Amino acid sequence: MIAAQYVGNKGFEIVQGTDQAPEAGEVKLSVGYVGICGTDMHIYHGVMDQRVNPPQTIGHEMSGTITAIGADVEGFEIGEKVVVRPLDWCGECPTCKAGLTHICQNLKFMGIDSAGAMQSNWTVKARTLHKLPEGVSLKEGALVEPLSVACHDVSRSRLKAGEKAVVLGGGPIGQLVAAVAKSVGADVLVSEPNESRRAFAEKLGVQSVNPLETDLAAFVDDWTGTKGADVVFEVSGVKPAIDAMTQIAGRRGRIVMVAIHSQAPEIDLFQFFWKELELLGARVYEAADYDWAIELIASGKVDPAPFISSVTPLEELGKAFASMDNNPQGMKALIECNAG
Amino acid sequence: MIAAQYVGNKGFEIVQGTDQAPEAGEVKLSVGYVGICGTDMHIYHGVMDQRVNPPQTIGHEMSGTITAIGADVEGFEIGEKVVVRPLDWCGECPTCKAGLTHICQNLKFMGIDSAGAMQSNWTVKARTLHKLPEGVSLKEGALVEPLSVACHDVSRSRLKAGEKAVVLGGGPIGQLVAAVAKSVGADVLVSEPNESRRAFAEKLGVQSVNPLETDLAAFVDDWTGTKGADVVFEVSGVKPAIDAMTQIAGRRGRIVMVAIHSQAPEIDLFQFFWKELELLGARVYEAADYDWAIELIASGKVDPAPFISSVTPLEELGKAFASMDNNPQGMKALIECNAG
Ligand SMILES: [Zn+2]
Ligand SMILES: [Zn+2]
Ligand SMILES: [Zn+2]
Ligand SMILES: [Zn+2]
Repeated sequence: MIAAQYVGNKGFEIVQGTDQAPEAGEVKLSVGYVGICGTDMHIYHGVMDQRVNPPQTIGHEMSGTITAIGADVEGFEIGEKVVVRPLDWCGECPTCKAGLTHICQNLKFMGIDSAGAMQSNWTVKARTLHKLPEGVSLKEGALVEPLSVACHDVSRSRLKAGEKAVVLGGGPIGQLVAAVAKSVGADVLVSEPNESRRAFAEKLGVQSVNPLETDLAAFVDDWTGTKGADVVFEVSGVKPAIDAMTQIAGRRGRIVMVAIHSQAPEIDLFQFFWKELELLGARVYEAADYDWAIELIASGKVDPAPFISSVTPLEELGKAFASMDNNPQGMKALIECNAG
Repeated sequence: MIAAQYVGNKGFEIVQGTDQAPEAGEVKLSVGYVGICGTDMHIYHGVMDQRVNPPQTIGHEMSGTITAIGADVEGFEIGEKVVVRPLDWCGECPTCKAGLTHICQNLKFMGIDSAGAMQSNWTVKARTLHKLPEGVSLKEGALVEPLSVACHDVSRSRLKAGEKAVVLGGGPIGQLVAAVAKSVGADVLVSEPNESRRAFAEKLGVQSVNPLETDLAAFVDDWTGTKGADVVFEVSGVKPAIDAMTQIAGRRGRIVMVAIHSQAPEIDLFQFFWKELELLGARVYEAADYDWAIELIASGKVDPAPFISSVTPLEELGKAFASMDNNPQGMKALIECNAG
């Protein structure tokens, strides 16, 4: 087997891995495809070296096939197609005990805090697995993780059919949020300065607007008949979106904070009071979000195909990372881990 | 009848009012007591003159007795004790139609945007009235409005018995929030620098801490066994509380924004992501909050008596305002409008 190791400073090495037999509670997978995430790009740029501790195999948006099953594992068979929910929770903290393992107080993220999926074989805890149904391909399966992020965001928002939702930012996660929001029967508007991303949204069947050319607040006021948006997803991570979100949300509007704002931005709290707004943080996903994402793909309600910009064999993954750097408007680059 | 008119720049004049007969849908009240609110103090200081447009009779925390009933009013009798929910909503906007009349898009606040209760008689729309049961005095009734604010805040927080709630700021509203939170069976901690206010909280039967002397985050960590607070009420309006609220809230913690922060403060959004926090704006009250507040007083679960710092006849209300200015640690000053 081979593994790609991030060695620091935009560098990867392909190394010969040692084949690991699954221990008790573990399952060994032949990895199908691994998507490159924004987080992987951050790692590539060296800004997470302290946490990642290179050399390290990264990657967490994956699909695979079971090739070996350890002791004490029930409900899985060799040959089954699965995806990994890459969370490693402690099971002991008050948050885990309350059932919220995805925000465990000692959460480790697989592919960042421990070895990830960019290798031909990956051995993981069986509790991280979700099965892919017959009709879902391994290529589509690699989109389950980011689609689950979107499902979690929409789930946090309590978005209902007939409501109006604005997605601030039309990158991969923003577009997936828009697709999930549309699938629940909401009216969706994507606000995004980049033309090709707006075109992508329109192809998904949702409206789009360029906030640099159009007064977004006035547009939403019109679009909603003065009511304001029921839900706003802040996915862009930029300050103008922080200002826009409190303007365009209507009374009792829910704002889901999807982007990670590491600086503490100034927020118009007066609007929170005046309109009784709600701000909801959202982090990764719960098991139910994975189930929902898989169902959305299986039922055809969300088509992952347009999200896949490129497929690159594991041996050449450095090229895929470099090309993401040069074409930040691309959606999702996949690494094929057993192209052989 | 007489009315106190705010004439600008900390000035009041007692004028002879014209006795108004109630029109259709209206009820005329003999005013019992009117509490002086923080908003009334703002008006007194002249900072709301544009909105209030003096000369104007202010006051909105009141109790009274029905003395005349207009046409088309059902369900009320002369002599009944009532309180006014001082909201004037349009009934036409999408928010009113959705049943959220308290955040009506054209909401007017009685006693600010129109004449208030600091007069011997007040004529109001019958739809603003809530009845006081037998056991509740007019003096206690004057506390229903601020207690309803607290009920609304606690209602927005979804606080449950056994949960741990921190109230940041021990002024009148903070103490009432603490009292309501205690009444639902929560463990309550009030964070307040002022010693006499901390003593007030302890008398209510809730814990208190001085955030200038004690590391609040460490204290809450200990108090909750690392879990963090389930609910945080930000009632203080100061920046250190904005920083504290995201630190002390636990995973999936709900933060209710009670204070009005007119400047847009910097907020640690990363904590919203990391702990999946929720920020909830709260404004005034709904009818159900009034019903709840009246029930809390009637049942003895919340005793308004300790909140009443002084009672001043209407003719001398200027003294009550001046004394609030000189003793900002006092809780609630009442104006007696028919001391006769
Ligand atoms: Zn990812
Ligand atoms: Zn845990
Ligand atoms: Zn008030
Ligand atoms: Zn209205």
